[in-house]
Amino acid sequence: MRILGIDPGSIHLGWGVIDYVGKKPVYVASGCFLPGRDEDEFNERLLSIHREVKERIDKFQPDLVAVEDSFYGENVKTAIKLGQVRGVIMLAAYEKNCKVIEIPTRKIKQSVTGKGGASKHQVAYMVGQILKLQINCPEDETDALACAISASRI
Amino acid sequence: MRILGIDPGSIHLGWGVIDYVGKKPVYVASGCFLPGRDEDEFNERLLSIHREVKERIDKFQPDLVAVEDSFYGENVKTAIKLGQVRGVIMLAAYEKNCKVIEIPTRKIKQSVTGKGGASKHQVAYMVGQILKLQINCPEDETDALACAISASRI
Repeated sequence: MRILGIDPGSIHLGWGVIDYVGKKPVYVASGCFLPGRDEDEFNERLLSIHREVKERIDKFQPDLVAVEDSFYGENVKTAIKLGQVRGVIMLAAYEKNCKVIEIPTRKIKQSVTGKGGASKHQVAYMVGQILKLQINCPEDETDALACAISASRI
Repeated sequence: MRILGIDPGSIHLGWGVIDYVGKKPVYVASGCFLPGRDEDEFNERLLSIHREVKERIDKFQPDLVAVEDSFYGENVKTAIKLGQVRGVIMLAAYEKNCKVIEIPTRKIKQSVTGKGGASKHQVAYMVGQILKLQINCPEDETDALACAISASRI
């Protein structure tokens, strides 16, 4: 079973692919991309996120897409923007006939580190241990790998 | 200039098309559709909303798509869901090379009735007056027409 994990964001978007060979997770690929920075071009960023996610799906042919369901803070405007990003990611998965699930951040951290309140650094460390990798990449990328790992454990 | 106004929602979605002939708004078409009700099928609803909006754009060829930027309440989960709906609508417009804008509910009400705090009923009444129509349709539909009317006045 192959899983594409995504840590959604309109500034940085992390992604990670793992294979499950029996119960053992095996690293396939991961990365991070920047849909853009300019506030005025949010529509274009949505288009770019939608296209990039479809390209990852075409390339890696995952059986499942797992999207981190995160929200820190109470700002409704930010929540709507994050929702817009997640909406186009979920649509991309659905258009490619991929099953898609959303996993709350706390569950991902719990699954990977044993602690729902773990720091990003602790998550990155455990992702390295689980996948037997030297981790030296943006935390959006390790968060996406953590999301993919936890998806197989739910 | 032709404008497609949308009142986004994952349960009911209202839409309305108006033409601007000089400064005069002329009714073209409007409607409401139900992407679905079942909470478990939210992904399918996103797909259905994306497809339906693209179909309206293909059929009516608007120059501009105006989406109501509404949010009542403080529930972040609801805001994320509404964001997901708006994300796929904006993506549909963008994929069809349509300009898309978001207009806050208060601005729409202000523009159509003169009062930012007008009721849905007052909005519906004024939409009828402005477009010289007997209004007898769901309020999501009159809200969408109000959104299209206000888009041309911004």
